[in-house]
Amino acid sequence: MAPQRVSASCRGFTGPFPLPLTMSTRGVLTRSYKVRAKYTDRPMTDRLVDATLHAFSEDLASDRPVPGGGSAAAYAGAMGAALAAMVLRISAKKAADPLTERIRQLDDLRADFIRLVDDDSAAFARVAEAYKMPRSTDEEKAARKRRIQVGLLGAARVPLECAKTARRLLDACDRSLEIASPATVSDIGVGALMAETALRGAALNVMINLASLDDAGQVKALSEELDRALDGGDDLRARILQFVESRIAR
Amino acid sequence: MAPQRVSASCRGFTGPFPLPLTMSTRGVLTRSYKVRAKYTDRPMTDRLVDATLHAFSEDLASDRPVPGGGSAAAYAGAMGAALAAMVLRISAKKAADPLTERIRQLDDLRADFIRLVDDDSAAFARVAEAYKMPRSTDEEKAARKRRIQVGLLGAARVPLECAKTARRLLDACDRSLEIASPATVSDIGVGALMAETALRGAALNVMINLASLDDAGQVKALSEELDRALDGGDDLRARILQFVESRIAR
Repeated sequence: MAPQRVSASCRGFTGPFPLPLTMSTRGVLTRSYKVRAKYTDRPMTDRLVDATLHAFSEDLASDRPVPGGGSAAAYAGAMGAALAAMVLRISAKKAADPLTERIRQLDDLRADFIRLVDDDSAAFARVAEAYKMPRSTDEEKAARKRRIQVGLLGAARVPLECAKTARRLLDACDRSLEIASPATVSDIGVGALMAETALRGAALNVMINLASLDDAGQVKALSEELDRALDGGDDLRARILQFVESRIAR
Repeated sequence: MAPQRVSASCRGFTGPFPLPLTMSTRGVLTRSYKVRAKYTDRPMTDRLVDATLHAFSEDLASDRPVPGGGSAAAYAGAMGAALAAMVLRISAKKAADPLTERIRQLDDLRADFIRLVDDDSAAFARVAEAYKMPRSTDEEKAARKRRIQVGLLGAARVPLECAKTARRLLDACDRSLEIASPATVSDIGVGALMAETALRGAALNVMINLASLDDAGQVKALSEELDRALDGGDDLRARILQFVESRIAR
């Protein structure tokens, strides 16, 4: 089957989404996954979210590619959901409405982000594992290629879920603006910044994994889902920040 | 001395920076600090950066205002510096240049952010402590007011340092773009997103503390420093993301 260009575009891309990649870029990615595979021999049984803030930053900074930007983006989302929940909890003390359902939704978003911190690194590690498979025979080569493709699909789906969760958080921050007290409005602002960073950061990780995926149908479907999560996110962040700054300044 | 309007403006504000605040807003902020003071009786001796990712997110989400957006912004900066360092460490393996000095600079930025995670919450707690001081006599009232003002200045200076550190990181991400391999370029993108979120998030925390500060000279000086850190940050983030996305898409 000849390489097919799909029409799906990812918002923020400067041009149409070019798939499949040229062989040269695919080669670079393949080599890089091999380099990465070499450095993922640390056991992945320990949960990243059980590491301390200091230790996780050391892990991110090391020459091991796991954990990377996908896990960091998910944790930014967790911090954003936490800040929004804090603001509502403080407002609820003074309000007639205990805001129970809204707070529960934010806690659920945070739980999703916390799970995605580890899911992202696990998905990446599965791709790296696939690249380590033997390829002496044609059967081995075919099995390895299938496993890589399955791995890439997973490594795109996890940050896509992160992007969708982040968009829900950004919308929730927008809805919480009027409830925030003047003293906590900056925290909602930081929450929205975190949400949008989780959204855009996860989107970069979806894109980089889709770039090596052969299944044009999956690429198109996932790209369109990503577009929907990204749609208008930049503007929403700008509007939220403008509101927060006007509240601080008045 | 009559209230004085200072000319310093904070970029992103929709109007001029209005200082001192109207009495009504000051009243709201004062009440809120008192509300916050009530919930800061947990010992602050444990370092936040020694908490796990999961526990820190629980702490952020609780109805205690410490830790809040300032500490979260600093940790976003730490993750961004870590990702940029990871990218350079991976590139250095293949390059003739070991990139030692650039990596050291990023590790230093990360160490600064890690310190600022705790410094921000400690500075906030000092303001809250000051609000708890007795105010039965005129002397007590004057002493309390002085301590609050000293606390507010500290609570503005710490996020200002975070904003300046974040701007240095954003500039470092920009300089690292060409060094990043195609497989790690998304990590530099996430690093830049984290840096800009740390910058804007810290800026909100500078602004909200300056809003209650009486010393117009300090307000002007700190606002101008903040403006310099913010200047062009938005555009730089957009340019970095555009470059990263074009690299992924090619």
